[in-house]
Amino acid sequence: MQRRIKNFKNIVTNYKAVFFDAFGVLKNHQGLIPGIIKTFEYLDEKGIKYYILTNDSSRSPEALAKWYQERGVWQVTSDKILSSGMLAMEYFKAKVDNGHSVAYLGTLNSAHYIETAGLNTVAVKDVDLDDLENVDSFAFLDDEGFNWNDDINKTINLLRKKNMTVVVANTDINYPVSQNDISVAVGSLADMVEKIIGKMFIRFGKPDAQMFLLAYERALLDINRLKRNEILMVGDTLFTDIIGGNKFGLDTVLVLSGNTLPDMAMIRISSSGIIPTYICETAVVG
Amino acid sequence: MQRRIKNFKNIVTNYKAVFFDAFGVLKNHQGLIPGIIKTFEYLDEKGIKYYILTNDSSRSPEALAKWYQERGVWQVTSDKILSSGMLAMEYFKAKVDNGHSVAYLGTLNSAHYIETAGLNTVAVKDVDLDDLENVDSFAFLDDEGFNWNDDINKTINLLRKKNMTVVVANTDINYPVSQNDISVAVGSLADMVEKIIGKMFIRFGKPDAQMFLLAYERALLDINRLKRNEILMVGDTLFTDIIGGNKFGLDTVLVLSGNTLPDMAMIRISSSGIIPTYICETAVVG
Amino acid sequence: MQRRIKNFKNIVTNYKAVFFDAFGVLKNHQGLIPGIIKTFEYLDEKGIKYYILTNDSSRSPEALAKWYQERGVWQVTSDKILSSGMLAMEYFKAKVDNGHSVAYLGTLNSAHYIETAGLNTVAVKDVDLDDLENVDSFAFLDDEGFNWNDDINKTINLLRKKNMTVVVANTDINYPVSQNDISVAVGSLADMVEKIIGKMFIRFGKPDAQMFLLAYERALLDINRLKRNEILMVGDTLFTDIIGGNKFGLDTVLVLSGNTLPDMAMIRISSSGIIPTYICETAVVG
Amino acid sequence: MQRRIKNFKNIVTNYKAVFFDAFGVLKNHQGLIPGIIKTFEYLDEKGIKYYILTNDSSRSPEALAKWYQERGVWQVTSDKILSSGMLAMEYFKAKVDNGHSVAYLGTLNSAHYIETAGLNTVAVKDVDLDDLENVDSFAFLDDEGFNWNDDINKTINLLRKKNMTVVVANTDINYPVSQNDISVAVGSLADMVEKIIGKMFIRFGKPDAQMFLLAYERALLDINRLKRNEILMVGDTLFTDIIGGNKFGLDTVLVLSGNTLPDMAMIRISSSGIIPTYICETAVVG
Repeated sequence: MQRRIKNFKNIVTNYKAVFFDAFGVLKNHQGLIPGIIKTFEYLDEKGIKYYILTNDSSRSPEALAKWYQERGVWQVTSDKILSSGMLAMEYFKAKVDNGHSVAYLGTLNSAHYIETAGLNTVAVKDVDLDDLENVDSFAFLDDEGFNWNDDINKTINLLRKKNMTVVVANTDINYPVSQNDISVAVGSLADMVEKIIGKMFIRFGKPDAQMFLLAYERALLDINRLKRNEILMVGDTLFTDIIGGNKFGLDTVLVLSGNTLPDMAMIRISSSGIIPTYICETAVVG
Repeated sequence: MQRRIKNFKNIVTNYKAVFFDAFGVLKNHQGLIPGIIKTFEYLDEKGIKYYILTNDSSRSPEALAKWYQERGVWQVTSDKILSSGMLAMEYFKAKVDNGHSVAYLGTLNSAHYIETAGLNTVAVKDVDLDDLENVDSFAFLDDEGFNWNDDINKTINLLRKKNMTVVVANTDINYPVSQNDISVAVGSLADMVEKIIGKMFIRFGKPDAQMFLLAYERALLDINRLKRNEILMVGDTLFTDIIGGNKFGLDTVLVLSGNTLPDMAMIRISSSGIIPTYICETAVVG
Repeated sequence: MQRRIKNFKNIVTNYKAVFFDAFGVLKNHQGLIPGIIKTFEYLDEKGIKYYILTNDSSRSPEALAKWYQERGVWQVTSDKILSSGMLAMEYFKAKVDNGHSVAYLGTLNSAHYIETAGLNTVAVKDVDLDDLENVDSFAFLDDEGFNWNDDINKTINLLRKKNMTVVVANTDINYPVSQNDISVAVGSLADMVEKIIGKMFIRFGKPDAQMFLLAYERALLDINRLKRNEILMVGDTLFTDIIGGNKFGLDTVLVLSGNTLPDMAMIRISSSGIIPTYICETAVVG
Repeated sequence: MQRRIKNFKNIVTNYKAVFFDAFGVLKNHQGLIPGIIKTFEYLDEKGIKYYILTNDSSRSPEALAKWYQERGVWQVTSDKILSSGMLAMEYFKAKVDNGHSVAYLGTLNSAHYIETAGLNTVAVKDVDLDDLENVDSFAFLDDEGFNWNDDINKTINLLRKKNMTVVVANTDINYPVSQNDISVAVGSLADMVEKIIGKMFIRFGKPDAQMFLLAYERALLDINRLKRNEILMVGDTLFTDIIGGNKFGLDTVLVLSGNTLPDMAMIRISSSGIIPTYICETAVVG
């Protein structure tokens, strides 16, 4: 059904905007995907706009952009990054009453980002279970920065003690840490807690439409009357990037530089029923 | 946390637009909720815009609107109705190649609506399993209009034989047919088929953000620069209307005229962790 | 880890008893697996006992045995057949009060078997929803013999109206009907109903230990002090036969004559983590 | 349907053997259920045998029995205790090759019990991921005794690196630690890991039939030709004790001294469809 096209350039040239997944597309555990800077140079040359959609709530868009800049990709600025953490932050900004706090599991960094919206945060380890008056909402932000044994159990008892809205700011269940190894992502910890307490959490992140909407609204600021079929979504994962892009009405490219390996791509497409518009080896413009 | 307010009027007056769920809010198995026309009269008088969000792909917005008009509620016109069937139709319009057909389970009526977008449809019972060249996508539209024994089995073998995108145009798992009785909705049939064939379907319907986006984009045509927190979502179901509205950044009212019964409302809120901004007996302006 | 051994004979000779799965091992959609009678001749010659474990509640053991006998395999007598239907029948015999009825979905044949235990049955289509005094339990017996549209909806409203124990007498979610085609099994219909009404059903069938216990208790009547590690389970499905046999303490053979295809066997084992003791092409003694 | 009977004595007197759940029936977070010793005295006086079925793999039956003995209940000896840990131990004894090791998550105590069967064990933290030749199986034994952050991630990468059978020796998802607080049980950690790596684990513990079989086989040593309907299962949890007992063919008593609170019992029975034969306030003989 879809056509495998060798060079990403031939595809991308037909679109006004490109949405990139980050991990497995622009970077991997070793750093930047070699040559990816040429892609941004080509897009700039052609006047095609680009944005990065990432299920990441561990850091601010500024901190995420800094990683690219430090590696010479000055094109990736913070205003081009759309993260699930931004959706969580917007949610709390709209919903948390003045003076109240968001309890969280994650690093100090992940909490600082929420605080930039003028909100108070409190790490689970510092929550006083006997004084919850000012704690009205909860966020799963990052799998690091806390003691799982103590703080996951404390989270469960906190959420049993007081009914509050719980936000999962990254729905991924794991992430790669090296060529062969992976790590539990905060989405898995949230799934476990949700099952134990029997409540329903609010989740932000691809493949959910709200991530694509965030990027689409951002792109509309740059390109007046941009239509969805003028946008290309580029991702390495069928179950998040591709199905989410398809459903939102975008054309999609599956690249084989990340967690869908070249020799498994057709089997995965056929067994999942998730069909990208195109398949490319990489997002590097040759 | 949320405040129970007797009269819906006192709440709705603070918003520029209202999103209504249909079943359990505006109507029930006996017909219109008594007095609901006064709500529309009040909203018109105050200049508050209103829209109806419904997980229904059995009929066109015109047919859905006609039901209200026949009962004297001339205010509900087809342009105010946003259905999951519309999202399915838009999806196929963008994604299905010229001359190709959408195979479907549902009534003729449900298929006719998709055909208004210029698409061909073919009922599963009329699909020739030995000639699938022109069948590239599949839709679960309605639980009625076909023989479950024959056509569900045929659907499974069709989807095993050719890899194609499958759209579920109504995610509800059941719907009420009388005071006490319910019926299997097409969402349940789709869940069963998906589990058997092991593929991943695209689903449209509350609580998914795309339904709220459809209504929000519609409302923006009427109200320039409308912000999300200027919209009130009114629903009778925590798991679709309320969590979906909350997540999209709307304020929400749980009404007790549908499937959340008055004496169970607080227990359900507390056990689910889904917290509406307000609770009202009904959406009727007293 | 496991060793692939060409001839089933070399394996089976080390055991006192063999448990066979039926479909994919002894028979397929075309009839008997060619040459399988030689296996029974060999087992008889060596004095190795054999039993057939099948997730089938559509017919009595007598009717199931007749199928083999009609094809010349006189060795398979009804006393050697252990079915999930027998567990359901035993359950109702122990639990249903005198004079009360078991409501069911299935064929007349599937109900007749339960009636041999002295129980009354009533097809869902014949249940009077206004007089449920004598209906205390429910059975999912077969996917055939009733109108799905009408009777599944009636089942749901019956089970909402009166709280009763529900037994699923065959946990399979589908079954093969030809080389390429499958059919929804009654286990899938039960899963759908269970999800809609939110209750918990009692399920009988592999991989559940109770099926293996039924066969083990049967084998103990033939072989005094038979130990579990003296029994070989032969099956074509990792998720039922092999994991169930492993867990019950039996040695297991995966045969490749059914739904685990030869070129996928190692991938399936490796991706599922279900590891048979041996792998053979077929259960036919060469 | 079931009858609520004030005094446990009137029920238990009709049976030859009693299976007790431990937590919520014989003990709670404060210690022994007051007066429970009178129950054992009565059973001894009447010659009714009793056994304790517990989803516990943290300690040996000897250590579990010692807890009762130290509190004056000398009747509870280790030979009367049947734990899910025993099933795990039996599994490894039958399946692990000589000289090979079982990798585990849990306390030293939980591993020591498996070693009493002559098996080697190795804590995940001590596994050398570059030398897995002798590690052929894995056990989830206890939620304590290891660093979750480090060792759960290491477990995932170990199980991705080498395909091996994984046993979950306690299927509970949480357990009470005080009047109001609970703790994540090892079953939840196993569920999370299983979902991330996509493999299928072997689980031991109620409501699975194998736990009831273990106790039944034990009881047969004391009472010749004991039939299942001569056994009474006593538990505080519908989803483990009661449905498991029902399915195994036992009569069941729901007691209200544990996690099914008196005012919720009828609602829970009605919403779950799990119907005990009897309901009692406690298992204490009045």
